[in-house]
Amino acid sequence: MKKKLKVLIVAAVCAVFLLGCSNSTKNDVTASKEETLFQVSTINSLLAGNYDGFMTFSELKRHGNVGIGTFNALDGELIMIDNKVYKIESSGAVVEVPDSDKTPFAAVTYFDQDVTKSLSNVASLDMLEQELDQLIEDKNSFYIFRIDGTFNTIKARSVPRQEKPYPVLSEAVKNQTVFNYDNISGTLIGLWCPEYIGGVNVPGYHFHFISDDRSKGGHLLDVRFDDAKAFMDVTDGFNMIISPTNSDGVVNDLNSEIDAVEK
Amino acid sequence: MKKKLKVLIVAAVCAVFLLGCSNSTKNDVTASKEETLFQVSTINSLLAGNYDGFMTFSELKRHGNVGIGTFNALDGELIMIDNKVYKIESSGAVVEVPDSDKTPFAAVTYFDQDVTKSLSNVASLDMLEQELDQLIEDKNSFYIFRIDGTFNTIKARSVPRQEKPYPVLSEAVKNQTVFNYDNISGTLIGLWCPEYIGGVNVPGYHFHFISDDRSKGGHLLDVRFDDAKAFMDVTDGFNMIISPTNSDGVVNDLNSEIDAVEK
Repeated sequence: MKKKLKVLIVAAVCAVFLLGCSNSTKNDVTASKEETLFQVSTINSLLAGNYDGFMTFSELKRHGNVGIGTFNALDGELIMIDNKVYKIESSGAVVEVPDSDKTPFAAVTYFDQDVTKSLSNVASLDMLEQELDQLIEDKNSFYIFRIDGTFNTIKARSVPRQEKPYPVLSEAVKNQTVFNYDNISGTLIGLWCPEYIGGVNVPGYHFHFISDDRSKGGHLLDVRFDDAKAFMDVTDGFNMIISPTNSDGVVNDLNSEIDAVEK
Repeated sequence: MKKKLKVLIVAAVCAVFLLGCSNSTKNDVTASKEETLFQVSTINSLLAGNYDGFMTFSELKRHGNVGIGTFNALDGELIMIDNKVYKIESSGAVVEVPDSDKTPFAAVTYFDQDVTKSLSNVASLDMLEQELDQLIEDKNSFYIFRIDGTFNTIKARSVPRQEKPYPVLSEAVKNQTVFNYDNISGTLIGLWCPEYIGGVNVPGYHFHFISDDRSKGGHLLDVRFDDAKAFMDVTDGFNMIISPTNSDGVVNDLNSEIDAVEK
């Protein structure tokens, strides 16, 4: 079906039947929405500079209540928490965005608390990741984390809105703003993707932060804290919608491009 | 939610609303089932030797009516056509499989004829792929092909059932059987995946063949024909269920492993 027509087509609406409402399908292993990571576009497309939003947040919210991502024209860092979407602008300001705005890249899920762990005396992002590694049993699945606490230090960044013709992501992030917050209460939303995910998303961890008062946040660069509570959601379903943008951008060395934008 | 419990959970059932049944959602871009490629597990997991089937064909048929894949214990080549699943055994025999059998790896869709093209004087698989390349506009999407014709020659293969502990795929295919068919009428079902799909599936083309009388087939190695009709379906939704198998297999050089099994 042609692209333009397709956009007019009404979406598949998933009627999720809960445990026990049908015994005849006990062998089914199709993931429910709670067990599915829903992704808009691919990291490869974003790396190549496809920043045009094409899915509204009203639509995105049908697929999850927590997540991370970015905005039309790469205008800031996205954190979805408790079904609200916040934009951390490069100025440091945080705004809740209207449902009519659109995203070019995001990953969300209905958060389902599978594992809980108390974390203590974490001195760095590396150490946080090592702690969370212990929770990851099946390296083929996806994991979403929510970490609540008062953090001694948070180092985070955001990126400025880009103008067309869009630069590739590794160029765009060169103008990032870095924020340092001390003794700040808030939440980290994190995603861990398997190695095989290649150009689809970023293998390993990726965290965004937002403060409890929803006034500060950003893409996490480093962190230190004494105590926090981590919640983990394991998902083994993955659902992706490809960007309707025709990408002429070619990313030749994906790993080095990802390194350039994640640090 | 824990794996064992999850397998008991009833699947999300997609109620696909057709064009025009709701004007309020014209901006939605979530793909309908017709525009979604549904994949069971990942090529990375299959390459590593995870051949235990975990999704029944009755469940798989809810996600598509054409596709390709393999069977529990890697027991032959799978081709789904007109909502029936056929196994091409390594002996060359073709059987329709019961709905209760399970697959460890497959990709299917509800075939939706977006583009039709007549093909003439195709001397090789390479030439067939070059002809189909002209139909692929957006290299970020997935494409499913159905090619009907009488083929001058078909070279195809199948693989024998494996015993545990399973060898990696590049070892398993060393025992493949190669079939050569002349002047045979039948259908090729093919899948084209984007470059960025990395360890998720095989970038580029992948065809399976079945004869009109459903007595011959296999994974396509080469082909030659004078005339055939190609039908193409563009899909921009991708839905994947991760294998519940804990993979301890590690595939270090994915590209060379894929080359070893596709040729």
